[in-house]
Amino acid sequence: MRKCLNNQTIIESSTDLRRARLRDALVVAAEQAIAREGLHSLRARALAQEVGCAVGAIYNVVKDLDDLVLLVNARTLATLERDLSAADQASERRGPDAAIARLVRMALAYLDFAAAHTPRWRTLFEHRMPAGRDVPAWYREQQQRLFGYVEELLLELQAQESRVRRALLARSLFSAVHGLVVLGLEEKLQTIPLPVLREQVRFVVTAIGRGMVEG
Amino acid sequence: MRKCLNNQTIIESSTDLRRARLRDALVVAAEQAIAREGLHSLRARALAQEVGCAVGAIYNVVKDLDDLVLLVNARTLATLERDLSAADQASERRGPDAAIARLVRMALAYLDFAAAHTPRWRTLFEHRMPAGRDVPAWYREQQQRLFGYVEELLLELQAQESRVRRALLARSLFSAVHGLVVLGLEEKLQTIPLPVLREQVRFVVTAIGRGMVEG
Repeated sequence: MRKCLNNQTIIESSTDLRRARLRDALVVAAEQAIAREGLHSLRARALAQEVGCAVGAIYNVVKDLDDLVLLVNARTLATLERDLSAADQASERRGPDAAIARLVRMALAYLDFAAAHTPRWRTLFEHRMPAGRDVPAWYREQQQRLFGYVEELLLELQAQESRVRRALLARSLFSAVHGLVVLGLEEKLQTIPLPVLREQVRFVVTAIGRGMVEG
Repeated sequence: MRKCLNNQTIIESSTDLRRARLRDALVVAAEQAIAREGLHSLRARALAQEVGCAVGAIYNVVKDLDDLVLLVNARTLATLERDLSAADQASERRGPDAAIARLVRMALAYLDFAAAHTPRWRTLFEHRMPAGRDVPAWYREQQQRLFGYVEELLLELQAQESRVRRALLARSLFSAVHGLVVLGLEEKLQTIPLPVLREQVRFVVTAIGRGMVEG
């Protein structure tokens, strides 16, 4: 009896391992497909072919393609977080000007990330959950951690404000930069050369930062 | 002979009239479909059924659905232009503060327009021409006219700058506001109540405006 139970456990965990491996392979294949051709090109059949499984097997390891895209987006967010951390080397200097300089560096790192990984970055915003389904809590927390970096820097500019208000300002600042990046990388309006776009980002972040200090 | 020519002319112009009417009907039907269900729901078959023509007849009056969407977007831009003009009542006051106040009013009008007509507004940015086809010049000019309003206001803040530089600043300002509006109305990040979003827009435009005066 005991032996049987143990065998059962071993079989289960090797099944778990296989499932985990298949899921990882699917995430990588989906990420590559998105990087190549964008979110709208993602097809279950092509993914199954790519990783060498049956189409039905996909749904043993993820609920559906939306869940798979969330896993891809989580990897994209992790890469972005790594880039932002690398850009934000805490300086010895203190005070508003140093904080604004750090915000500018982070904003430029965001622009560079979007320019380097445009389809994956775009998918972060293009993908919507089907009607009636919320983005899961773990994903929201990962997003929130990125805003956390900005909020921390805003402490230098807005120490007197409440935490809630600072969170809102961090969001405003991110949104303004995001707008510059989105329309700057968009082909429809005339495309802006990257150095000009960097200058725009620098200008807007500095102006908002100064506006915060004075406001 | 003459009579025949005249008849021919009459027939031609009545054909032109029928084509123009069909085209107008298709634009209205496409606009309503987009307003109801968004750009991705647009289908030639459903449009043909709506206006009572054969599917093939659509392609007698527009090149394809992309051309039709451009005509819908042109109407959306015209409505937006009307709203922006209405919001920007030239004040008697002159100088940077008055110009910043006018920029804030225009930015809030943009936010209100996007909130009131979200799917149509979203379609302005979601729609991309197929690979290898450019947005036509008449559409670009209509877009440009909207930036023109902002550029004119920036004359008060940046009179010393070149026209090219002011055009770039107008674009930066618009992009920053657009970012706030896009992410504020997006369901994926937590939705922001409209009054809070208005406050964010006011803050960011004022900060950038002041940053321009000081820079």
